[in-house]
Amino acid sequence: MGHPAFLMSVYYNYSMSELSPLSELLEITVGELLRQRGWRLAVAESCTGGLIGHRITNIPGSSTYYMGSITAYAYEAKVRLLGVKWATLEKYGAVSKPVVLEMARGVRRALAADVGLSVSGIAGPGGGMENKPVGLTCYGLSVPDYEQSWQFIWEGDRIHIKEQSAEQALELLVDFLRS
Amino acid sequence: MGHPAFLMSVYYNYSMSELSPLSELLEITVGELLRQRGWRLAVAESCTGGLIGHRITNIPGSSTYYMGSITAYAYEAKVRLLGVKWATLEKYGAVSKPVVLEMARGVRRALAADVGLSVSGIAGPGGGMENKPVGLTCYGLSVPDYEQSWQFIWEGDRIHIKEQSAEQALELLVDFLRS
Repeated sequence: MGHPAFLMSVYYNYSMSELSPLSELLEITVGELLRQRGWRLAVAESCTGGLIGHRITNIPGSSTYYMGSITAYAYEAKVRLLGVKWATLEKYGAVSKPVVLEMARGVRRALAADVGLSVSGIAGPGGGMENKPVGLTCYGLSVPDYEQSWQFIWEGDRIHIKEQSAEQALELLVDFLRS
Repeated sequence: MGHPAFLMSVYYNYSMSELSPLSELLEITVGELLRQRGWRLAVAESCTGGLIGHRITNIPGSSTYYMGSITAYAYEAKVRLLGVKWATLEKYGAVSKPVVLEMARGVRRALAADVGLSVSGIAGPGGGMENKPVGLTCYGLSVPDYEQSWQFIWEGDRIHIKEQSAEQALELLVDFLRS
């Protein structure tokens, strides 16, 4: 088979993370902060497809503060596994602040964690719409007494959008844990 | 903070995948074979922490054949989300062929997929036992009329074991889909 442009991009970007100096590996900071607070984390991934969990579990001992994750692409799976409401999905779409809040809350409860973190976005190259372009990514964070959501638009190819989405999710989590 | 040896390893091994030529990216072959068969895949990850899902979703259009994944570290989460039996966990331990078979079956059902793939292993550096050393990894595969499990022992550090585990899981899936 041939190797179209996106594959060269897969190939090239696989190693993007090595460009970060060690001190900027957010998964290390996340682990330190969760340990300090004695909190356990659960993650609901969508467009990142498992990259956030992969980065968190690269750190030895992460099983003490990381409960796991649920990546649910289909609407039905979001409803069944994460407790997202059909009505919310139909009204706002999967990539929306109301849905990521329900995902964060749902994964926190499903995995009996203290903090729920969620991401839903359009990694492309397909799937973009006029009001929801490729690169649009929503983030949700849920603890028992507080919830927040964010929205960003990333540029670049699929892998780049996945990597920026994962990095941003970890950064939002670090900011929250420090606050 | 300092940077102990394992962090250098995290740093270094992040880019390991770039060493593979494009033609060997199993996630591409997995996608082609699933499309040919019209089958949808779900994955239950443990020691790989999300890496399998990350690799599969690097491929554009993967949402048409990839339903998602569940990464469940705790026994309770394995029981609740994947339908693994407490008795199986207690009798054989989380890293065992009977448990990965129940994980593969459970994730296939939970995500309404045609094929369930599962991995459970000890990525280290902690967690090893006399009869279950660091690097021990079990794999399960489940379709409605067939199930199989495998066991391998990998050497190397945590990241290397994660990467070998993910690569092997994709390879077993490709072999199965081709058979």
